[in-house]
Amino acid sequence: MPLIQYLSRIHFDFGAIAGLGDEIVRLGLKRPLLVTDAGVADAGILQRALDAARPLDPVVYDGTTENPTERSLLDCIEIWNERGCDGVIALGGGSPIDLAKAVALLASHGGSLADYNVKQGGSDRIGKVARQIAIPTAAGTGAEVGRACVMSLLDGSKCVAVNLNMVADVVICDPELTLSLPSRLTAATGIDALSHGIETYCSPLENPPAAAIALDAVRRAAKWLPVAVQDGSNREARWEMMMAALMGGMCLQKALGAAHAMATPLGELHLHHGTLIGILLPHVLRFNAGHADLAYADLRGAASLPEDADLHVWLTEFVSGLGLPARLAELGVAADVLPEIAEKASKDHLAKTNPRPAGPEDYLTLLREAH
Amino acid sequence: MPLIQYLSRIHFDFGAIAGLGDEIVRLGLKRPLLVTDAGVADAGILQRALDAARPLDPVVYDGTTENPTERSLLDCIEIWNERGCDGVIALGGGSPIDLAKAVALLASHGGSLADYNVKQGGSDRIGKVARQIAIPTAAGTGAEVGRACVMSLLDGSKCVAVNLNMVADVVICDPELTLSLPSRLTAATGIDALSHGIETYCSPLENPPAAAIALDAVRRAAKWLPVAVQDGSNREARWEMMMAALMGGMCLQKALGAAHAMATPLGELHLHHGTLIGILLPHVLRFNAGHADLAYADLRGAASLPEDADLHVWLTEFVSGLGLPARLAELGVAADVLPEIAEKASKDHLAKTNPRPAGPEDYLTLLREAH
Repeated sequence: MPLIQYLSRIHFDFGAIAGLGDEIVRLGLKRPLLVTDAGVADAGILQRALDAARPLDPVVYDGTTENPTERSLLDCIEIWNERGCDGVIALGGGSPIDLAKAVALLASHGGSLADYNVKQGGSDRIGKVARQIAIPTAAGTGAEVGRACVMSLLDGSKCVAVNLNMVADVVICDPELTLSLPSRLTAATGIDALSHGIETYCSPLENPPAAAIALDAVRRAAKWLPVAVQDGSNREARWEMMMAALMGGMCLQKALGAAHAMATPLGELHLHHGTLIGILLPHVLRFNAGHADLAYADLRGAASLPEDADLHVWLTEFVSGLGLPARLAELGVAADVLPEIAEKASKDHLAKTNPRPAGPEDYLTLLREAH
Repeated sequence: MPLIQYLSRIHFDFGAIAGLGDEIVRLGLKRPLLVTDAGVADAGILQRALDAARPLDPVVYDGTTENPTERSLLDCIEIWNERGCDGVIALGGGSPIDLAKAVALLASHGGSLADYNVKQGGSDRIGKVARQIAIPTAAGTGAEVGRACVMSLLDGSKCVAVNLNMVADVVICDPELTLSLPSRLTAATGIDALSHGIETYCSPLENPPAAAIALDAVRRAAKWLPVAVQDGSNREARWEMMMAALMGGMCLQKALGAAHAMATPLGELHLHHGTLIGILLPHVLRFNAGHADLAYADLRGAASLPEDADLHVWLTEFVSGLGLPARLAELGVAADVLPEIAEKASKDHLAKTNPRPAGPEDYLTLLREAH
């Protein structure tokens, strides 16, 4: 039975970061912890956020790694306790946003992250967490409106904590912050946004509001991602891509599919998520052809393709036109890990909502084709 | 600057009412107050809800009037206190749903409804209210996902209380409950759902997720409302119309326009809201032509009209085809009240988001044309 949920208060526009100070006051925060990474700091974006937060002076943690770790989380909690923090501001891509969610969870709930692992039924233990403001600096994951965080535990295993209570209270999407993003990263994050619209729209779960949002995300990303990659200073393209990413995040609840089911275990090899998705999704679109005909017709319309166009052919050329790799081998993935990846992908919960049922053999075939 | 917000946990399908008992338990309610009206009780729908709530036995208030009143609210609060209620279930159209929101507000906050009147800045005094489950029995207002209640105070004036904290925790949309709705009421409520999509989509505020939802609501209502009116037992039409109404309610945050600005003061004459909207909106569409060209083109597409079709001509015929009145005079509106209605409409906050600015004279012209 369809279950439909939406959350968050989202400011969206060029210059939206200027509202950060007001939102901190509105949430009643006196000493927020700002979680970011070195890249964001080096690009000068951290300073812009700190300027916008005045007269408040957030405590800064800029040690977030690409795949956020429990080590960083423990560091943040130590700072939180030492400095008497009362809320968290995430500034960056998916990693600082995920880490900030984990901080908000542990700071309010205590215990260790593993206590809240979705695989051990930990989601039910998550109540209202500490206040959060999320400020994305790339247009991709849509994590700013997400309800989950994915973290590497000290023992190396992955832990996912997920609950609607972890959705950020406030989201500030300022496309200005993405103007300096290099074209390679624009492409690799943007293809993730596009993929959220495509996989969500094809999934068989019924959620018309999410589907409407997904299709519009595809329309925007298909048109504007090549422009943003070509000319990062194009403000309209940056606005549209940040909107596509936000909408991609908002529609995710309808469910994903096989490309994300494979990207999850491949991500454990420390490969860039969006880059993986760009390689995998064209193969998945070919595999699913004939199993989601109505969705494919609508997607062709959204991407302004002729009625008889092959979606996977279009996406293959689209990815290649963005300068992204087309093969897993180019990322250094060894052929002999593919059977294990296929096995894990077939068991991933995202595999259940792929429009065409697929077992380990199907995934192995897909992975070999993508290799 | 665009501000985007969505809330609620929504179960949607035939038979969804069966989940009521589980949701009551999930919210931790021991003695909910079920707010409904005599029509819902007479149609046997109240009994179905009570059966679904077992083993719990909600306290029932079935005295809701068509325009809910502070008198009913005080009665509900008295019952709430006497019986030790701890949450509220709304079952019905917009009126019981609005009344239930007011009950949830006063039961948790105390005071009188006027203390929370939006016109006196009362919205800021609204924190978390008592738990609410909303179960619509018609496909129209979308109030089930609304954040506002409109009530008549004891002195006869209207009071609007609005805050995101008043959004129902859980919504149960079961199209089965609408199968017995008479065709006239199906038409008059359904046109309201369609109008939410149309006015929202044309409004100049920027909110792409709401716009995507609005356009899809129009697509569904334009196709399925005539079918539901023609054959109330058509299950697909009932499902689609309930979805159109829900999506219409979800997209409202983008803003409405002139038709709703006029329907508000006309509603004070105790006229049916949807019927009014069916009369007014075609005139508004003619008035706005040329001031929202892109939106009009998309709306033509959503309604499967030729590219050169006049939206107002289409909607005039659509409303008439549903058997709804085309003139205010048919509802008994006297010509001499029109100047006062025009004055009030031009000052209504909904007038601000009409794509074409309109003053009292414009509204008077529109009202005379519709008379």
